[in-house]
Amino acid sequence: MNNIKENLINKCVLAKKAGKLLAVSTGEARNNALLAMADSLEKNEKLILEANAKDIEKAKENGIKEAMVDRLMLNSQRIKGISDAMRKVAALPDPLGSGEVWTRPNGLMIRKVKVPLGNIAIIYESRPNVTADAVCLCIKSGNTVFLRGGKEAFFSNTAIISALREGLEKSGFSGDLIQTPDDTSRETATALMTLSGYVDLLIPRGGKSLIRSVVDNATVPVIETGAGNCHVYVEKTADLEMAARIVKNAKMQRPSVCNAAENLLVDREIANDFLPVIKKVLEGTELRGCEETVGIIDVASATEEDFFTEYDDYIMSLKVVDGYKEAVEHINVHSTGHSEAIITRNTEAADYFTANIDSAAVYVNASTRFTDGEEFGFGAEIGISTQRLHARGPMGLSEMTTVKYIVVGNGQTRG
Amino acid sequence: MNNIKENLINKCVLAKKAGKLLAVSTGEARNNALLAMADSLEKNEKLILEANAKDIEKAKENGIKEAMVDRLMLNSQRIKGISDAMRKVAALPDPLGSGEVWTRPNGLMIRKVKVPLGNIAIIYESRPNVTADAVCLCIKSGNTVFLRGGKEAFFSNTAIISALREGLEKSGFSGDLIQTPDDTSRETATALMTLSGYVDLLIPRGGKSLIRSVVDNATVPVIETGAGNCHVYVEKTADLEMAARIVKNAKMQRPSVCNAAENLLVDREIANDFLPVIKKVLEGTELRGCEETVGIIDVASATEEDFFTEYDDYIMSLKVVDGYKEAVEHINVHSTGHSEAIITRNTEAADYFTANIDSAAVYVNASTRFTDGEEFGFGAEIGISTQRLHARGPMGLSEMTTVKYIVVGNGQTRG
Repeated sequence: MNNIKENLINKCVLAKKAGKLLAVSTGEARNNALLAMADSLEKNEKLILEANAKDIEKAKENGIKEAMVDRLMLNSQRIKGISDAMRKVAALPDPLGSGEVWTRPNGLMIRKVKVPLGNIAIIYESRPNVTADAVCLCIKSGNTVFLRGGKEAFFSNTAIISALREGLEKSGFSGDLIQTPDDTSRETATALMTLSGYVDLLIPRGGKSLIRSVVDNATVPVIETGAGNCHVYVEKTADLEMAARIVKNAKMQRPSVCNAAENLLVDREIANDFLPVIKKVLEGTELRGCEETVGIIDVASATEEDFFTEYDDYIMSLKVVDGYKEAVEHINVHSTGHSEAIITRNTEAADYFTANIDSAAVYVNASTRFTDGEEFGFGAEIGISTQRLHARGPMGLSEMTTVKYIVVGNGQTRG
Repeated sequence: MNNIKENLINKCVLAKKAGKLLAVSTGEARNNALLAMADSLEKNEKLILEANAKDIEKAKENGIKEAMVDRLMLNSQRIKGISDAMRKVAALPDPLGSGEVWTRPNGLMIRKVKVPLGNIAIIYESRPNVTADAVCLCIKSGNTVFLRGGKEAFFSNTAIISALREGLEKSGFSGDLIQTPDDTSRETATALMTLSGYVDLLIPRGGKSLIRSVVDNATVPVIETGAGNCHVYVEKTADLEMAARIVKNAKMQRPSVCNAAENLLVDREIANDFLPVIKKVLEGTELRGCEETVGIIDVASATEEDFFTEYDDYIMSLKVVDGYKEAVEHINVHSTGHSEAIITRNTEAADYFTANIDSAAVYVNASTRFTDGEEFGFGAEIGISTQRLHARGPMGLSEMTTVKYIVVGNGQTRG
């Protein structure tokens, strides 16, 4: 075993040791920890902003794009935003404990209780708000957390983690509940992905290449998040005015996020009417159409590859289809299984679509942009799972737990 | 891509194609499929028994142990047992559909529905009853199934699968819902473990070496099952007569199964009284004790390795501990996280034990042998998960599903 791995394992052992008390703590104690961490963030504002300034300076030196620099930047208001978000999570219901209870004919009483998953590792990119966000969701759900942020935010993350640890200690927990590697090298990230037995779940939060690297290299359990090649399908009976509003929202309201739409399917019967309208509505978005689309409106040609592409940008591919069955077939082949919408007034089409589309979230007459823990009413989310096992769709606090069966008897043996 | 993998992928594609109808079928249609498969098994009894005779003959030629030959053997009564078990599963509640419904302040109505996981692969060893058992649970939960049984049962499994397919076709489904490789080579098994995108879940059912091989080689999602280094801890306030009965049951009623106990911990205060009793009660079981145990009763010495060992045999390791905190610490270090029991009359000890033991099932005053889908009231089980993600403990039909969110609006867009 090399030194990098040994060093990470030592940190995980510290976390696991500290985690024992956290796992059996009351919801109230965990909420107090969140409130103390929020206070500590605000109290340490000056140190955090100084550290952040170093990251910003380095980013500018390295010629990082303006939009990225903005994602990295903290100020008083943003820190207040982060600590207020932590206080909001503290107010959410406790995801641990409770659960069904039943008694078997032999008198055994079985209780299914929710318990923490254990040690959750998060590998993420530049945004320093993810640091506090991930810590807060993990601690609330009784899990320890191993944070590996991007190198661009190294100083900011170090300062934030230090403030959060201080808060934990103030509330009576050990600062060891939060761990982070000593550097942001690729080797460290790769080693973290293979700590079987020390990392109970790894969640990558970031772009496609990060997620691909985790899925390819990890031997610890992973939840894949955020791949979103989402579709909006406008069925021939649709209210076209509503359809245009929804398509515009799904594509243009925030094109860089995973629940933004990348592909528009339109029924042949309405293509001549609807495509010219949508071209106008999506002004500012580059359109790439199938052969039939190109015959109706003046847009570039889409390749088969376009239909598989998550642009995360002001680009959309368009395809004319022959009714809802073809739409469903096209989507199930090309989608990443995140979110898809049908716009229709035909109940039969809506029912067929929702039953047969194989994605985490399927919409009728609404924007795909709603796939989100807050919007679903979960209060918060650690990511949006596009896999089938354990969690699918927005992952809230409840998805950060596992179960334990507590069985109470009075001497029962098996016959 | 080599030929083995290509051949398996072709079979998975057939399964996925046939699976589309299954995934949206009614519970009644799936139950009818189970009943038709049960009938078909009985109708094909002669062919199945002829095939089984070939396997038995080969096993005897190869000098396979008597106990293994018995596990392999079918007869009229055993086939009736298998088909009756299928009818029982048909009568269980439908695990698909239903789920919570809620409405958001913006009017979006969200429905969380249970849907099939997809294509479930099972790699298992010699017992041919697993073939029908796995098919029946997968089809009931809307999943297609890829069966890779042991080479010892090749002819039996081929005949059973053929009968089950015939039943599926009779009930209006495609026989393609059940797939199996053309051979039982190791290469085929290994290829099956790496069919990302074609196998949605792989469940190994069998001994330690099979499970280890799957965990080491699989790139598809896996649920680890059946590793059971289970403990019984007799606390100083225990009813010693009850404790002796439970220890005997947990160790000796069926030592080869994963929920049998392998380790006995005894409080120091009662060790002088209890150990001589337990030596008599466990007659026929080889005992291996810690230093203190060896000072009290005449048994062999246990090594540290013994405390990590799942014997699956008439062997048990014994350790004297200094109260429930030490017992919990010892168990959490040495256990595989399957099932552990405390025998006690002290509520404080019981509460500490159930809260702090980190295993799928934790018992107070009952035998570990109850960790089982039937015994828990789930009606059936596909295995007992010792991992934390997706399912933990007995996996019933409900654990063979994932979720989909269906969201119905009237034009909502995100602001």
